[in-house]
Amino acid sequence: MNIVADLPYNRLSARKIDTGRIVLNVREAGEGPLMLFFHGITANSAVFAPLMDAFCDRFTTIAVDQRGHGLSDKPESGYDAKDFADDILSLIQTLDRGPAILVGHSLGCRNSVTAAATNPDLVRSVVGIDFTPFIETEVFDALASRVNAGDQLFGHLQAVEAYLANRYPNIPAPAIKVRAASGYQAVEGGFRPLASPTAMAQTAEGLRADLVPAFRDVTRPVLIVRGGDSKLVSAAALQKTSALRPDLPVVVVPGADHYVNEVSPEITIKAIRNFIDA
Amino acid sequence: MNIVADLPYNRLSARKIDTGRIVLNVREAGEGPLMLFFHGITANSAVFAPLMDAFCDRFTTIAVDQRGHGLSDKPESGYDAKDFADDILSLIQTLDRGPAILVGHSLGCRNSVTAAATNPDLVRSVVGIDFTPFIETEVFDALASRVNAGDQLFGHLQAVEAYLANRYPNIPAPAIKVRAASGYQAVEGGFRPLASPTAMAQTAEGLRADLVPAFRDVTRPVLIVRGGDSKLVSAAALQKTSALRPDLPVVVVPGADHYVNEVSPEITIKAIRNFIDA
Repeated sequence: MNIVADLPYNRLSARKIDTGRIVLNVREAGEGPLMLFFHGITANSAVFAPLMDAFCDRFTTIAVDQRGHGLSDKPESGYDAKDFADDILSLIQTLDRGPAILVGHSLGCRNSVTAAATNPDLVRSVVGIDFTPFIETEVFDALASRVNAGDQLFGHLQAVEAYLANRYPNIPAPAIKVRAASGYQAVEGGFRPLASPTAMAQTAEGLRADLVPAFRDVTRPVLIVRGGDSKLVSAAALQKTSALRPDLPVVVVPGADHYVNEVSPEITIKAIRNFIDA
Repeated sequence: MNIVADLPYNRLSARKIDTGRIVLNVREAGEGPLMLFFHGITANSAVFAPLMDAFCDRFTTIAVDQRGHGLSDKPESGYDAKDFADDILSLIQTLDRGPAILVGHSLGCRNSVTAAATNPDLVRSVVGIDFTPFIETEVFDALASRVNAGDQLFGHLQAVEAYLANRYPNIPAPAIKVRAASGYQAVEGGFRPLASPTAMAQTAEGLRADLVPAFRDVTRPVLIVRGGDSKLVSAAALQKTSALRPDLPVVVVPGADHYVNEVSPEITIKAIRNFIDA
């Protein structure tokens, strides 16, 4: 049995899309209005296979390797919110099928809300998973340390899985296998992350920028999803975000940490359905 | 100036609808898919004029005097959740334009969620304002006392307004005027509530029935809206409801008590937009 070939994301068709400003690698399934997925820092489009499975009967679901990640372009610089958000907007324009529902986790949430605030005509709504304004400095410090520590040579894929299982203790083993198989490349002596180390460092720094203006100004509907045990979005950060935008609906997923859609895909899928079907 | 004629609900057209099981008085504005509004105990359809104003450009907005209230039928008995919910379902069938978005406050929330759980084909979604399972017995005791104390003869309409302003201290004066002018009738010696006292007593008792099955079983999207200062839905009751249905989105309106849509119509309207436009 070929374990890698049996992983759910390998049932998705992959292709490259040149948006004019960047070439993005995407994974795709289904037909209908656009539902786009944007992963967190150091991850890639493969992590969204369970959610795409749930929605590809009604939507063209497309998960994107964001700049610096996976098999997409990795420019030397340009890893701020505006760079990522403009990629999203140029992708929707290239696909010419907007407005799109944007589902973003962490970095992908930041980028999705920024894109919606920048050009509401291209965005129907945003499902923003576990990233808000008001994240504390020490939380960003810890995130940057974890991210930068990922730049390693692993002897074999099992070592990658062991590293990821330790880094993401609540993500179930099958989803860890997906991250390992999809996010690393064979190199001389073993495996290295597909994500560019210098891009990751810049992206981690860029996450610290003030997100209040984007959340304050966004006019399209945003569902705020938080993991009940998230160490990235504290209860205090969520509370301040709700004070800023009391009209935005909130789902807190019990028992989930920051990696909500990988730890609790079923509740995440139901929450998205309740949001977009209302 | 005729103050009563200038109140916003008088711009709505009123009519009676015989659903086959009951004759309901409704207020109506706009064209498009159905958005129906259901008031809390002792209130009537007039309280929803600000919300109908906001949505009648896209929806047929219809606010209903529920059984026992306003100018609708007031049978001697039949004031349980099923009685009210079956009225809603028969109304949608009579209008023959479902599925409908149901916006319900308090009693109206209980009835709307029950209707959606009973016949999901007739309901698109529910905006459930400040009523959940797990409301404490002493809260229902206090509510029943307030409701039953409303059966009074008032010498003039100003006395009604003074009574209502005292009973609902956070509802702004213009909305108090709406409740007074729309919810009382001239009788020998002054004014009395349009709502039937015996129907109110039975309805208050019926609110105590277990609402867990309806919230557990409802398959249509429900937005849970709570007033941040609500004395009816405690923070604990909301927390238990979210544990029961972690996939349902929640909006907590800061500074609002139980009467969320009258105290904070702007945030309520934005929250409904964010829910139905996603």
